Amino acid sequence: MSWKGLIYHYEDCLPVNQRTPRISLCEGNTPLIPCHNLVRALGNENLDIHLKFEGLNPTGSFKDRGMFLAVAKAAEEGAKAIICASTGNTSASAAAYAARAGIKAYVLIPDGKIAFGKLSQAVMHGAKVIQIDGNFDDALNLVRDISDKFPIALVNSVNPYRIEGQKTAAFEIIDALGDAPDYHVIPVGNAGNITAYWKGYKEYHQQGKATRLPKMLGFQAEGSAPIVRGAPVKEPETVATAIRIGNPASWKQAEAARDESGGLIDMVTDDEILQAYTLLARTEGVFCEPASAATIAGIIKLNNKGFFTDPCRLSCTLTGHGLKDPDTAMKQEIDLTKSTSSMSDVLRALGLNS
Amino acid sequence: MSWKGLIYHYEDCLPVNQRTPRISLCEGNTPLIPCHNLVRALGNENLDIHLKFEGLNPTGSFKDRGMFLAVAKAAEEGAKAIICASTGNTSASAAAYAARAGIKAYVLIPDGKIAFGKLSQAVMHGAKVIQIDGNFDDALNLVRDISDKFPIALVNSVNPYRIEGQKTAAFEIIDALGDAPDYHVIPVGNAGNITAYWKGYKEYHQQGKATRLPKMLGFQAEGSAPIVRGAPVKEPETVATAIRIGNPASWKQAEAARDESGGLIDMVTDDEILQAYTLLARTEGVFCEPASAATIAGIIKLNNKGFFTDPCRLSCTLTGHGLKDPDTAMKQEIDLTKSTSSMSDVLRALGLNS
Repeated sequence: MSWKGLIYHYEDCLPVNQRTPRISLCEGNTPLIPCHNLVRALGNENLDIHLKFEGLNPTGSFKDRGMFLAVAKAAEEGAKAIICASTGNTSASAAAYAARAGIKAYVLIPDGKIAFGKLSQAVMHGAKVIQIDGNFDDALNLVRDISDKFPIALVNSVNPYRIEGQKTAAFEIIDALGDAPDYHVIPVGNAGNITAYWKGYKEYHQQGKATRLPKMLGFQAEGSAPIVRGAPVKEPETVATAIRIGNPASWKQAEAARDESGGLIDMVTDDEILQAYTLLARTEGVFCEPASAATIAGIIKLNNKGFFTDPCRLSCTLTGHGLKDPDTAMKQEIDLTKSTSSMSDVLRALGLNS
Repeated sequence: MSWKGLIYHYEDCLPVNQRTPRISLCEGNTPLIPCHNLVRALGNENLDIHLKFEGLNPTGSFKDRGMFLAVAKAAEEGAKAIICASTGNTSASAAAYAARAGIKAYVLIPDGKIAFGKLSQAVMHGAKVIQIDGNFDDALNLVRDISDKFPIALVNSVNPYRIEGQKTAAFEIIDALGDAPDYHVIPVGNAGNITAYWKGYKEYHQQGKATRLPKMLGFQAEGSAPIVRGAPVKEPETVATAIRIGNPASWKQAEAARDESGGLIDMVTDDEILQAYTLLARTEGVFCEPASAATIAGIIKLNNKGFFTDPCRLSCTLTGHGLKDPDTAMKQEIDLTKSTSSMSDVLRALGLNS
C-alpha cells in the first residue's frame, strides 16, 4: 500500500469526521534510523539508539505531523485564514498546508535568529510574513490576541489538533520497533512535542499495541531552559533557534509527561549541542538542525554521568533537517578549500600528492 | 513492516551479494503526492499529475537512491575513499553515505553556482571539499583521472551502481500506482536519472509488474541544453544549478530512453523554471529546488501547445528539496515585512486594520 499521509493511515486515532477535508502532503512515515557508529563513539554497548528523523517530513520538520490536522480542522470549520507565531519550522509547515488547502497564512516571526531555510519556505509558500522586534513569546501573545478578535484560526501548538497529529510519531515508533522503547529522547522548546509523544505512547499502550511505556527524556538549551530552571526565561538565547522559547505553551503537560513516565527534563549547553550536531553528521551521515542535536547532546551528558548501566533501547526525535539552517553548519569547523583546475593543484589540495 | 532502506527492500533487483555491506540511511520510500490545485491552475482536466518528491530522501535529493549502492560496492571492494564531482546534490549524498560507511569522501565542486544548502551538507558530513575554478564538466574530468591513478572509487553517475540504485524510483511509482503512468517527466542534467528510471520501468515491465511503459519526457534548462541542441555546451548557465551540465555523462542513454519510449527531451527557460517553482510551492505546498521545477515548467510548456489532448496520468520527479537552495527562494517575489511588536502596528502590517 502506498503511503497517503497521516489523515488516511491513522484516521481511526484522530479527531476527523466525514466533513474534515483530507489535507495531506503525505507527511509522516518517517524513517527510524538505527545508529551504528555513534554508539561506538560513546563507548557504551548498552545503548541501542534509533533516530526518528522527522526532518524527512514534507517541509523538513515534525511540524507537518500536527499541521495537516490543524489546517484540515480550520478548513472544516470554515476558516479562510490561519495564523501562527514561529521560530521558523511552524511557519514553514503552516504556509505549506495553507497553500495545499487553498487558504491564507499569516506568520509572525521574532526578529533575528530565524534559520534562513525556514524563512525561505514560509515566503515561497505564499504566506504573509511579519518579522516583529520581539521574541517568540511576544509573537505568540500577539497571534493569540489576533485569533481572538478576527476569524483567523490559530495553529500554534496551543491548538489541540497539533498535539493530536503529532502523537502519531509515537505510534510509528511502536509500529517499527514492535514495542515502546525504554527511553524516548526529545528536544523541549514550546513543549508541544513531548506532550504529543507521551499522549501517543499512552494511547497505543492502552490499545494493547505496546506492553510498556518509555521514560521521557527531554532536553532544553541552557540559555533557554525555563522548565529546568522552574521559571520563565525573559530573554532566551541559544544557537538552537527552534527551541529558543522562554515560556513554553505546554509547560505543565511537559512536566506531566516527565513525571508520569519517570523521566527527566535537563539542559545542555550550546557547545554540547554543536558538538553533538557535528558528531552525528560525521559518524552516522545524518544531518539535523541544531535543536534536534540537543537530544544527542543529552544522551552524551547522561552517558558521561553513568546513566545507562543496563542494555536499553532509545528512540530519539530529530525534529528538523539540517538543511533548515545551513548558516550554522557553515560556521562549524569544515574542510573547504579552493584550487585552480590543474591536476597538480587539485592533487595538492586533496593531500594526494606524494 | 518498517522501511529499512533500498538495499533491504529491493535486494532481489540489485547487484548485491552476501559480502556487500548493508549501507542504509533508510533512503527511498518517498511519497508520490497527487496534485490538486496545479491541474486546476493549468486548466486541463485531462491531467492526472503525481509528484515523486525525491527531496524527502535523507540528504534531500534523489542522489541517495544510487549512492547507498555505490558506496556499499566501493566498501565491498575494499575502497578506503570515494571521490566525486558535483553541482551539490551528489556531494551531499556521497559525504553522508561515506560517513555512514566509515570511509573518506573527496569532493570537487565547480566555482560559484553551488546552492548553499548543498555545500553545508558536504562539509558537515566531513568530506574534503575542493572548489575548483572550472565548471562541472572540468571537475568530472579531474575526478575520472584521479580515480584511475589512485585507489579511490569514483561515485559519479558514470559508476553503474548509481544507475542501478536510482532505478528503484520507477519501481516505487509502479508499486504505488498499480501500473506505469502514461508519461514520466524528469529533469535532465548529467542524464543518469532519466537513464535509471527508464531501466527501472523496463525491468518491472519485463517482470510483469506493469502492463505498459511510460513515455519519457525530459527537460533541460535552455542555457544548459546539450541534448536538445545536439552539441555540448561549453559554458552552461542556468539558475537550475543541479542541471547546469554541458556534456552529460549519460547522453546516449538519455537519447535511448527518449527514443525507445516514444518520448521527448525539450528545454525550458530560467524564467519558465522559476515561475513553475513558485507556482508549485504556492498552489500545492510542495517546495522543490529550481532544477526539479523544470519538470513542471515542461508540463506547462507542452500543455500550452495542446500536447495533452486525452486523459493521461503523469508521474513527475522532483529531484531535490527547496531547502537545498534557500537563496533562490529569497530572490523571488515574496511577502516579508518588518513591524514593531505593538498590536496596532502588527495589524496594519498584516492588512487587518479597518
